[in-house]
Amino acid sequence: MLQDLKKKVLEANLELPKRDLVIYTWGNVSAIDRDTGLVVIKPSGVAYEDLKAEELPVLDLEGNQVEGRLKPSSDTITHILLYQAFPEIGGVVHTHSPWCTVWAQAGKAIPSLGTTHADYFYGEIPITRKLTKEEINHNYEKNTGEVIIETFEDKNPSYMPGVLVNNHGPFNWGKTPQEAVSNAVIMEEIAKLAYYTQSLTDAVKPIDNSLLDKHFLRKNGNDSYYGQVTK
Amino acid sequence: MLQDLKKKVLEANLELPKRDLVIYTWGNVSAIDRDTGLVVIKPSGVAYEDLKAEELPVLDLEGNQVEGRLKPSSDTITHILLYQAFPEIGGVVHTHSPWCTVWAQAGKAIPSLGTTHADYFYGEIPITRKLTKEEINHNYEKNTGEVIIETFEDKNPSYMPGVLVNNHGPFNWGKTPQEAVSNAVIMEEIAKLAYYTQSLTDAVKPIDNSLLDKHFLRKNGNDSYYGQVTK
Amino acid sequence: MLQDLKKKVLEANLELPKRDLVIYTWGNVSAIDRDTGLVVIKPSGVAYEDLKAEELPVLDLEGNQVEGRLKPSSDTITHILLYQAFPEIGGVVHTHSPWCTVWAQAGKAIPSLGTTHADYFYGEIPITRKLTKEEINHNYEKNTGEVIIETFEDKNPSYMPGVLVNNHGPFNWGKTPQEAVSNAVIMEEIAKLAYYTQSLTDAVKPIDNSLLDKHFLRKNGNDSYYGQVTK
Amino acid sequence: MLQDLKKKVLEANLELPKRDLVIYTWGNVSAIDRDTGLVVIKPSGVAYEDLKAEELPVLDLEGNQVEGRLKPSSDTITHILLYQAFPEIGGVVHTHSPWCTVWAQAGKAIPSLGTTHADYFYGEIPITRKLTKEEINHNYEKNTGEVIIETFEDKNPSYMPGVLVNNHGPFNWGKTPQEAVSNAVIMEEIAKLAYYTQSLTDAVKPIDNSLLDKHFLRKNGNDSYYGQVTK
Repeated sequence: MLQDLKKKVLEANLELPKRDLVIYTWGNVSAIDRDTGLVVIKPSGVAYEDLKAEELPVLDLEGNQVEGRLKPSSDTITHILLYQAFPEIGGVVHTHSPWCTVWAQAGKAIPSLGTTHADYFYGEIPITRKLTKEEINHNYEKNTGEVIIETFEDKNPSYMPGVLVNNHGPFNWGKTPQEAVSNAVIMEEIAKLAYYTQSLTDAVKPIDNSLLDKHFLRKNGNDSYYGQVTK
Repeated sequence: MLQDLKKKVLEANLELPKRDLVIYTWGNVSAIDRDTGLVVIKPSGVAYEDLKAEELPVLDLEGNQVEGRLKPSSDTITHILLYQAFPEIGGVVHTHSPWCTVWAQAGKAIPSLGTTHADYFYGEIPITRKLTKEEINHNYEKNTGEVIIETFEDKNPSYMPGVLVNNHGPFNWGKTPQEAVSNAVIMEEIAKLAYYTQSLTDAVKPIDNSLLDKHFLRKNGNDSYYGQVTK
Repeated sequence: MLQDLKKKVLEANLELPKRDLVIYTWGNVSAIDRDTGLVVIKPSGVAYEDLKAEELPVLDLEGNQVEGRLKPSSDTITHILLYQAFPEIGGVVHTHSPWCTVWAQAGKAIPSLGTTHADYFYGEIPITRKLTKEEINHNYEKNTGEVIIETFEDKNPSYMPGVLVNNHGPFNWGKTPQEAVSNAVIMEEIAKLAYYTQSLTDAVKPIDNSLLDKHFLRKNGNDSYYGQVTK
Repeated sequence: MLQDLKKKVLEANLELPKRDLVIYTWGNVSAIDRDTGLVVIKPSGVAYEDLKAEELPVLDLEGNQVEGRLKPSSDTITHILLYQAFPEIGGVVHTHSPWCTVWAQAGKAIPSLGTTHADYFYGEIPITRKLTKEEINHNYEKNTGEVIIETFEDKNPSYMPGVLVNNHGPFNWGKTPQEAVSNAVIMEEIAKLAYYTQSLTDAVKPIDNSLLDKHFLRKNGNDSYYGQVTK
């Protein structure tokens, strides 16, 4: 079942090493079929070159594996919580891509320092609070999902398609697994730009709201005028 | 019409991902046919691998589309204003190449710190002032062109084939779209060199005018003696 | 003899340039056959593309060459000392990979700043003390091995599969030569992340022990739950 | 004439883009035939992919072109002066490779901060003084050669196979054009390591002389014991 979605999840996972977001098995992409509420995700610890679409594990939104013999990614429960909390998303990706990981390790949100950022992320890219010792020791992966959702209490996941988990690394999402991955690629590029911009000048400030609005809204939302009309 | 120019514009656009100046659709190259005053430019939001020469949009210098069904780049009006203001140029390119974008986000001109810079750019590479809220909210792309032209009031675009748009990124130009792209590649390299040079020493100063003159003028202008004689 | 092991050592050596850990001949991988106590290692100063499995030198644990006409790596005695001191390891690798070399040249251990580090290295990655003038002038390569072993007096080499040699560069090991190389690749990535994390913030601290335990122990040791069950 | 040498010079020039030392035409390699005193060098401003061995210009040590219709590199006179001053060298290379250029632009010699440096360069890599206005305006390329030679008054070019020209970039040499290029590749790597090492710690000092001696002399000179015996 879900043959098409499995193919898309496979392709999206293969984008990760191709786009230099991961080495070895350091990342995973999933997608959800909203009709059935079933999630397809990368198996744990399997090399990208060995992945086969038909072998990808399938789980329901309670985390029960309903298909596939391979164990799903150890981050599966985090993905599932995001699908539960953010009904508008269809794909989730987690990597340890270097520039985002650097910001996560430094415990810093990524400020919006230019129009490249504003084209895709509507404001500062948030970072979660640190997990408590208790949250680390019991249900760590579930609590990772919970702390992301807590961070987004007052945020729109469509306007901010990514987050940094403190001391850890980035999670991204999108309407499809493909869009989730392109958001991860772009957040990595923006994290790099922000690092060097901050390093070049002490006086750097986030861009003005009018410029943020202009760039985000000309590419996203109802009045966008970027790209070809596809409707 | 303009078959040859369309091919050149296509090739110049394909140089952008090949030279690592862009990811996804983050850049655009145009060219002008000075006899007819017609401009060929990349369509908006189309992936480089899907571009076809015969489908490239053609516009006149008033911005009216005279050929092609695809919508032109959202930056088209900026390109057109540059062709109007700088009669000596034949190609324009805009990217978010990382090192130039870092300087643009930091709001800093790129000082001339060595002979590599002096070989191609005759002095500090300028940065525009920030646009006002009013200029951002109304006719943003037109005002982007205007602020570049304002920055060049006292400058020769043949001696300074590029600019940083504040908070945004680089624009470059040249006699041909190919030369515009090679100037973009070189400005990116120079932006990188300048970043690390400034980081290595607090005391760095622009090179002396005699060295700037020597290097720029041995490669450019009437008394140049670099390269093969091709006349 | 040791045909299979020689093939594995050849493949592991070829991973070094492929993974951008070395240029020219700047690295070497060895493996030990614990049954016979024989060590297979890269010959000295031979280009990776010219290596042939059947020509790899074989030595016993006293350092006597028992097979092969090519001279073994000048670092051979260091490798042999590690095999003597750490009976649980089966492969050793030495490179001058840039990020690890930077930390080694700075004379600094690599602090554990995030979960990527904790997934593979159980705490700060140690750096040896500097060798004395006497230790440099007499039996330099032997003393390099000795100072690594001294550094690990109170450490478990299975929980810390690598070290920085002061002013020099990294050594890594693993159960197999392949695992030694993947540990070298990962230590290089972690060294890069740590460099940029420290540069981004003055206030950076090692991660909490609970997070270190969680990540290291979910991937390593008896209660790990990462990857597929292969027993 | 000099067919073999021309082939070697061609190959050495092609190494420059392959090893990421140059973009476009930003570098040149030459070689000398010591029997005839003739120098083969890259033509000026010709793309690497268009170079043909038989078309490479040949000059004598007075700078007279004795073969070939293409104009030689504008840096030819600098190369020739080095061949005159350093009788032990057979190849010279000049590039604007980024890390060396950064040190040159910062006006700083590259300190010997680790064994990687010591393996190839016997001490700090020197930087020339700046040229005077007079030296820039008259016979610039000749004076570039002179200032390198002045810098080496008390140095052995075999023990220090490279130099930084102030505000400009690196020159390297070797017994052959191939060795000159590998020295350029290695100096670029060392310049990168030194940059990041200095950035990581304020307290960094050059390595001790005993370690410098050990590493340089085990790879170079009469008592070296690195690599295979080829005599």
